[in-house]
Amino acid sequence: MNYQFSDRLKNLEGNAIREIFKMLANPNIISFAGGFPTLQLLPTKEIDAIAHEILSSSQASAILQYGGTEGFYPLLESGLEYAKRTGLEGEIKNTLVISGGQQGIDLMFKAFLNKGDTILVENPTYLACLHILKTYECKAVGVNSDDDGLNLEDLECKIKLHNPKILYVVPNFSNPTGKTLPAEKRKAIAKLTAKYRVIVIEDDPYGEIRFAGERIPSIKSFDEDSNIVYITSFSKTISPGLRTGIAVADEKIIRKMTIGKQAVDVHTSNLSQAIIDKYLRKGLLEPHLKEIIPIYREKKEVMSAGIAKYMPSELKVTNPEGGLFIWGEFENGLNTSETFIEAVKEAETAYVCGTSFFASEDVHNTLRLNYSNATLEQIENGTKKLGDFFKKKISEMK
Amino acid sequence: MNYQFSDRLKNLEGNAIREIFKMLANPNIISFAGGFPTLQLLPTKEIDAIAHEILSSSQASAILQYGGTEGFYPLLESGLEYAKRTGLEGEIKNTLVISGGQQGIDLMFKAFLNKGDTILVENPTYLACLHILKTYECKAVGVNSDDDGLNLEDLECKIKLHNPKILYVVPNFSNPTGKTLPAEKRKAIAKLTAKYRVIVIEDDPYGEIRFAGERIPSIKSFDEDSNIVYITSFSKTISPGLRTGIAVADEKIIRKMTIGKQAVDVHTSNLSQAIIDKYLRKGLLEPHLKEIIPIYREKKEVMSAGIAKYMPSELKVTNPEGGLFIWGEFENGLNTSETFIEAVKEAETAYVCGTSFFASEDVHNTLRLNYSNATLEQIENGTKKLGDFFKKKISEMK
Repeated sequence: MNYQFSDRLKNLEGNAIREIFKMLANPNIISFAGGFPTLQLLPTKEIDAIAHEILSSSQASAILQYGGTEGFYPLLESGLEYAKRTGLEGEIKNTLVISGGQQGIDLMFKAFLNKGDTILVENPTYLACLHILKTYECKAVGVNSDDDGLNLEDLECKIKLHNPKILYVVPNFSNPTGKTLPAEKRKAIAKLTAKYRVIVIEDDPYGEIRFAGERIPSIKSFDEDSNIVYITSFSKTISPGLRTGIAVADEKIIRKMTIGKQAVDVHTSNLSQAIIDKYLRKGLLEPHLKEIIPIYREKKEVMSAGIAKYMPSELKVTNPEGGLFIWGEFENGLNTSETFIEAVKEAETAYVCGTSFFASEDVHNTLRLNYSNATLEQIENGTKKLGDFFKKKISEMK
Repeated sequence: MNYQFSDRLKNLEGNAIREIFKMLANPNIISFAGGFPTLQLLPTKEIDAIAHEILSSSQASAILQYGGTEGFYPLLESGLEYAKRTGLEGEIKNTLVISGGQQGIDLMFKAFLNKGDTILVENPTYLACLHILKTYECKAVGVNSDDDGLNLEDLECKIKLHNPKILYVVPNFSNPTGKTLPAEKRKAIAKLTAKYRVIVIEDDPYGEIRFAGERIPSIKSFDEDSNIVYITSFSKTISPGLRTGIAVADEKIIRKMTIGKQAVDVHTSNLSQAIIDKYLRKGLLEPHLKEIIPIYREKKEVMSAGIAKYMPSELKVTNPEGGLFIWGEFENGLNTSETFIEAVKEAETAYVCGTSFFASEDVHNTLRLNYSNATLEQIENGTKKLGDFFKKKISEMK
């Protein structure tokens, strides 16, 4: 039978990064693609003990039974407490458990967007956000980005021009650039979006992975008109495989997201929820962060050093204070989409072409490098191999 | 701020059944609402041991890491084997892990339906299917149902009349009626839908909960033109709280569902997937079914007996050979929606009004009774209390 797929999916191919993974099955290839936490640092021992504690307790049957769509009540409490580290306020009625941070974006789009609507995103932005947006047949307009994130003048200008329903922003160590919004900009974004009645999705998966300096209050902590929705996940801090996150928003928004969630997965896995809850309540997160942050910091430093040492001078890179990514731009216009396959084959090192992170512009001279899922040795070797490769490519351009 | 919700959700309230649960917090109330498996029969001990086996093994880190959207490879294998019990054929490329059977419906609608499209459903049908459909701004048309499920003449007539993209059907012990399609009807449905190029979603969560007789081959086992998508879940056979199911379909359909799933939850919880996989591979399902089926059968028999003994003669009920539900219709037109609150307060026994299970018709004289989540004593007492209550209501009508 010839299938007539829906308009929303008929021309949609898979998320670029997840497709790349399939090319990287060869173990000789060093991958700076992806955004995986360091495999060896995942807290298997603690989660093994917690899972046993849950499944051997009197609550075990309730965990294996259906649960409420809103979430496992203890995790609504402990997850809200976790979110409050960013200075925001809220109660249980403002809180929803989601099956990973990405589901929060999907449920927000489901709750607010009609076909043809426009949203604003930082340029470049999280490519899954753009991918999800396509499944709603909506359009993203990119807002210019300074070294410290969104350019406020351009933001106001684009709001006036496009009358967007939503602004999507990653406030801390942004994916893909690693940039972080300073507090004054967050306050200004809250003020500006309240003025123009734009909903803000503040997506904060990386905030706790901070190498230096102090945590900056969330945009939501400056929320003046209940127009900001804070989303976080435990994928980068505890485990991505458990697919669990938290959304905090006005009660009416949480209610609509819940109705949407009823329709998509009924509720998040109770076992995942109970594990994350106990992990938080046992106070295991702080020591875990203390263990992983210095390792992530070192990986980032080795990558920054490798880039300085081996990459051609035409590559300008960001210098993030946390998160998982370094972003690079070839000032001479080297096309990183064209060189990708060759880089994997010749330099045996993979990056992510920056193209997919842009809302609409055709930008081909950028790339994203991830350091969390490679060893120090791989980072050193990979930056050298990639550096030599790019230098060769540039000499061929001349 | 005044929120402008999307057209798809602005008028949508929560799934009727999940809203009812909130009314049933009082432990004195006997609930025949819901479709929960028996809490005490959930295999906590086995799952505790399996979780520990997984999380203490060398694969533990990989389980806590991100996984592929298609699913955990071992579960794609074992889940496909499970689906093959119904006589269907397929390979790994035809298989997708889903976060519960309901996600399969959502992903199919996402892949095939545009706003305004029509699908056909059995009348009455699974109310979550109708709820999900509303989030796609599509319309369901009900097909008449005989004692053995879909009426084939009406099905062909409605296909010609409405040119539907999809037929949704629960082949075994249907929710809400408990009806089962005989093999010859399944074959005829496969033939008819292939002829008219209608996609079939065959939703089979209850097939293994069979009290008598032999398993009937799935509609998909008669698939002539790759137009049938088989969905099953482990919610009724192992654990609903783990939110794990399997879809089997043509490779091109699986591909589109996977792209849709990438956008909604990236992948199903790896720990849930690995637990279900090991449960299946260890051969624990057969003995578990042998344990729970006689108990479910007894509950069903006690409920059937209680209905015969206590309910007014105007209530005509189905006599299912498996599953979780008995369906009733008041021949005298008693309005079960109007009596619901009173029944909960006065008879302290809850049912589900049948109204929500109909595609569009205003039917108010039906109800669904679940027996799996009540004790034998509660079933005896509840049918008596409800029977007395309905008799009183009927005498008041006269």
